Amino acid sequence: MKTNAGRFFEDYKIGEVIAHAVPRTLSGGERALYHALYPSRGALYSSDEFARACGLAQSPLDDLIVFHTVFGKTVPDISLNAVANLGYGEGRFLAPVYAGDTLSSSSEVIGLKQNSNGKSGVVYVRTTGRNQRGEAVLDYVRWVMVRKKDLGAPAPDTVIPELAKAVAPEDLVIPAGLDFSAYDFAQAGEPYRARDYAIGEVIDHVDGVTVEEAEHMLATRLWQNTAKVHFDATFRPDGQRLIYGGHIISLARALSFNGLANAQMIAAINAGAHANPCFSGMTVKAWSEVLDVAETKAPGVAAVRLRLVATNGAQPELRGADGKYHADVLLDLDYWALMPA
Amino acid sequence: MKTNAGRFFEDYKIGEVIAHAVPRTLSGGERALYHALYPSRGALYSSDEFARACGLAQSPLDDLIVFHTVFGKTVPDISLNAVANLGYGEGRFLAPVYAGDTLSSSSEVIGLKQNSNGKSGVVYVRTTGRNQRGEAVLDYVRWVMVRKKDLGAPAPDTVIPELAKAVAPEDLVIPAGLDFSAYDFAQAGEPYRARDYAIGEVIDHVDGVTVEEAEHMLATRLWQNTAKVHFDATFRPDGQRLIYGGHIISLARALSFNGLANAQMIAAINAGAHANPCFSGMTVKAWSEVLDVAETKAPGVAAVRLRLVATNGAQPELRGADGKYHADVLLDLDYWALMPA
Amino acid sequence: MKTNAGRFFEDYKIGEVIAHAVPRTLSGGERALYHALYPSRGALYSSDEFARACGLAQSPLDDLIVFHTVFGKTVPDISLNAVANLGYGEGRFLAPVYAGDTLSSSSEVIGLKQNSNGKSGVVYVRTTGRNQRGEAVLDYVRWVMVRKKDLGAPAPDTVIPELAKAVAPEDLVIPAGLDFSAYDFAQAGEPYRARDYAIGEVIDHVDGVTVEEAEHMLATRLWQNTAKVHFDATFRPDGQRLIYGGHIISLARALSFNGLANAQMIAAINAGAHANPCFSGMTVKAWSEVLDVAETKAPGVAAVRLRLVATNGAQPELRGADGKYHADVLLDLDYWALMPA
Repeated sequence: MKTNAGRFFEDYKIGEVIAHAVPRTLSGGERALYHALYPSRGALYSSDEFARACGLAQSPLDDLIVFHTVFGKTVPDISLNAVANLGYGEGRFLAPVYAGDTLSSSSEVIGLKQNSNGKSGVVYVRTTGRNQRGEAVLDYVRWVMVRKKDLGAPAPDTVIPELAKAVAPEDLVIPAGLDFSAYDFAQAGEPYRARDYAIGEVIDHVDGVTVEEAEHMLATRLWQNTAKVHFDATFRPDGQRLIYGGHIISLARALSFNGLANAQMIAAINAGAHANPCFSGMTVKAWSEVLDVAETKAPGVAAVRLRLVATNGAQPELRGADGKYHADVLLDLDYWALMPA
Repeated sequence: MKTNAGRFFEDYKIGEVIAHAVPRTLSGGERALYHALYPSRGALYSSDEFARACGLAQSPLDDLIVFHTVFGKTVPDISLNAVANLGYGEGRFLAPVYAGDTLSSSSEVIGLKQNSNGKSGVVYVRTTGRNQRGEAVLDYVRWVMVRKKDLGAPAPDTVIPELAKAVAPEDLVIPAGLDFSAYDFAQAGEPYRARDYAIGEVIDHVDGVTVEEAEHMLATRLWQNTAKVHFDATFRPDGQRLIYGGHIISLARALSFNGLANAQMIAAINAGAHANPCFSGMTVKAWSEVLDVAETKAPGVAAVRLRLVATNGAQPELRGADGKYHADVLLDLDYWALMPA
Repeated sequence: MKTNAGRFFEDYKIGEVIAHAVPRTLSGGERALYHALYPSRGALYSSDEFARACGLAQSPLDDLIVFHTVFGKTVPDISLNAVANLGYGEGRFLAPVYAGDTLSSSSEVIGLKQNSNGKSGVVYVRTTGRNQRGEAVLDYVRWVMVRKKDLGAPAPDTVIPELAKAVAPEDLVIPAGLDFSAYDFAQAGEPYRARDYAIGEVIDHVDGVTVEEAEHMLATRLWQNTAKVHFDATFRPDGQRLIYGGHIISLARALSFNGLANAQMIAAINAGAHANPCFSGMTVKAWSEVLDVAETKAPGVAAVRLRLVATNGAQPELRGADGKYHADVLLDLDYWALMPA
């Protein structure tokens, strides 16, 4: 068999480092496609001039382009036989990525726990994306439930990594040179600074996007994520193509411009859960909750910790009385963004 | 409320200049997407070599990329609460835009007229797009009907700008260096010069394109136009997403290659009306009528004034016996194009 | 009539060379779109770094971008009135194409045979694509069945070109500098060299993609192929848009990464047939058969001759008992790929 059947739970060993295949050079083409696929308007990612005025060499590629590209490379090795994508944590963006950069990624197995049914287990990996100079641009932890192929394979010793509930503000990496002290709020689209946001404040981002099959497939392919379930309508018994969770992250983040236009850069992903599956025809809306506000050492730059919730239609509640996510909650993401102080 | 609720009729004052947010750097990515979204084949916009042979530095971005980008920036300030996009006039393309340029736009309120029902009014703006050097690349007048929020707000003095019925040929701005005296008709695809077109001549552009939701949403997002009605299938009672009028302009213009392959550059938009809404599933066709032919001072360059009509299916008539647009007429656009003399 | 009605069978003369219109400059935008449209993962086309390590200046544009662009230009002159696209042969890729290059194409009529019904005939053309320096980058033979307009026009002398069943391995053109002697199999995604493939070996590429209208239209327009049948749902009596055959070639080739990740460059197209039409909603799968393995003079570079079959759903058989293609076989392509020896 020359084709890749993917790894099964018993194939992972603690401490193993997997170098994922197919490095990828990103260009202005990926940047343009990102703007066509998502209603993205952050000025720093839209205009070279705006980015220069903020101390960067040019407009970087959207942080989520970096996330999706690095993530996409892990799919053939990590999640081809995944039953569920359980969560993210300790994600940090470590350096901006520009058109012309080439990204590759690798993952270290940092946790394993066989499920009590003996048919599957949870695999924790820390994935690192690097540019062509070998500099780390992103790392994050992801855990997925993966099927066993050989049910008789012995259960590994259980190792569950201790993960920080959130990246500490002092651990956020601010891009070299970033300076918001002469930030142009008019060009950015909204007048609000970090200090204008109150912890606990909730922002309904108002707009909605009804998603189409062609769009999520274009996006998911662009990141070279080839999980069958996103592309093959004959794969699931219900004939539906499951939309890549990252598509929802990008949609919700782009929608959040309306009320959070100055939350320019994603500095960290503290936690994330794909609460319910998303399918074509759903109308994705989003709301955010301000979880924290912190200072950074960069001039004029603050960090705002946000919960970003994507929903199918309007759904202001995150969980029902039973404590479970409402059926129309699609995403619950906890992240740090950099904003004028 | 940190989100943008848009302006209402009573929020506009004559003479006010609104600087629209989010400058945008355009690249070869937007150019490629334009070719994927529209059946565009104009040689000047397809080939750097052809453009150089016509005296330009390289192939410029399609004029309508410039129009859509400049227009898109105005939406949050001008048409978020628009009931109808009523018309365009006095539009002139002032300088070519190349990959790497960054565009921004601003609008001056030049006319106001409250409707007799007291619930809405017409706002006239002159919008100017500028590149990163502050040079104007496009200006045009647009008027939209906008709702009042506070019905008790006093009606403003009525000001209706006097608009030229068409840009005078001597006011057309010809790109510096443009020279069609060695124009390669074989490469361009058709042998016809301006002198081969008779005033009154009508050209059926033959081809049709059945439009899809994913396509018009990709296009409209690419121009950072975020009007809900284009994206959210739950917004209109009929569950249909209204297609951005500019999508129809670009479709029709691209279809007009077949018969007008040498109408290379758009120099002016004299007038334009979105006669009827367009929805996914319609098959857009187009025909043109030659309205005028004029000389320019540039070597070998003539100007041809064209009416471009987009229809849902074939519809050779513009108006019915009642003088109204036929229900299957989508667009009636009057523009000047530059063509070999 | 200023519009192009296309040529009919009686309009072609043996030896005539047709220079096709509208040269096209390709950029990183087309490259990104190719990755969004097809699940393409070949490392040489994904990463500038990987391409440099293989002796090239940077990552070239996918060979099929070149094929589609060159082919697209021929449509208005060759296949606008085609009843059927009958086959391909003697195709050779002659030089890599990079972002920034401008392609044009021309075709020589090398064969004519009127059908016995007197209503149509077969036209054979040899098409050559050239870059901005006039260097040939691709040539191939295609034959199509074209309608006669004037049924009374005399039949031409029958000329049927003798075409090689396959390009001989010694006639393959290896890009200057290509060197696979330090090939990084881990980055490329699979460990298999040419010597690991046995003649007769069949590889099921496992994955499938359900195709959408928006996708094939975006792709087909990107190559400036404007045949009505791909875009206009009112053109065929059944209301279906026929998918451009090249879309299936690209889909199948991209799917073949899974099992043939190291079949990096297409060196030749020996033969090709679009066995059955493809429509939106079908789920395209693919399998390959190894037909031959050969040496080349380039360091570490072998050539592998492959049959690539695209199917609607899973269909391991090529032909039925009657010798005809199974109804769910979409494509039967015979090509040479360059692979580490």
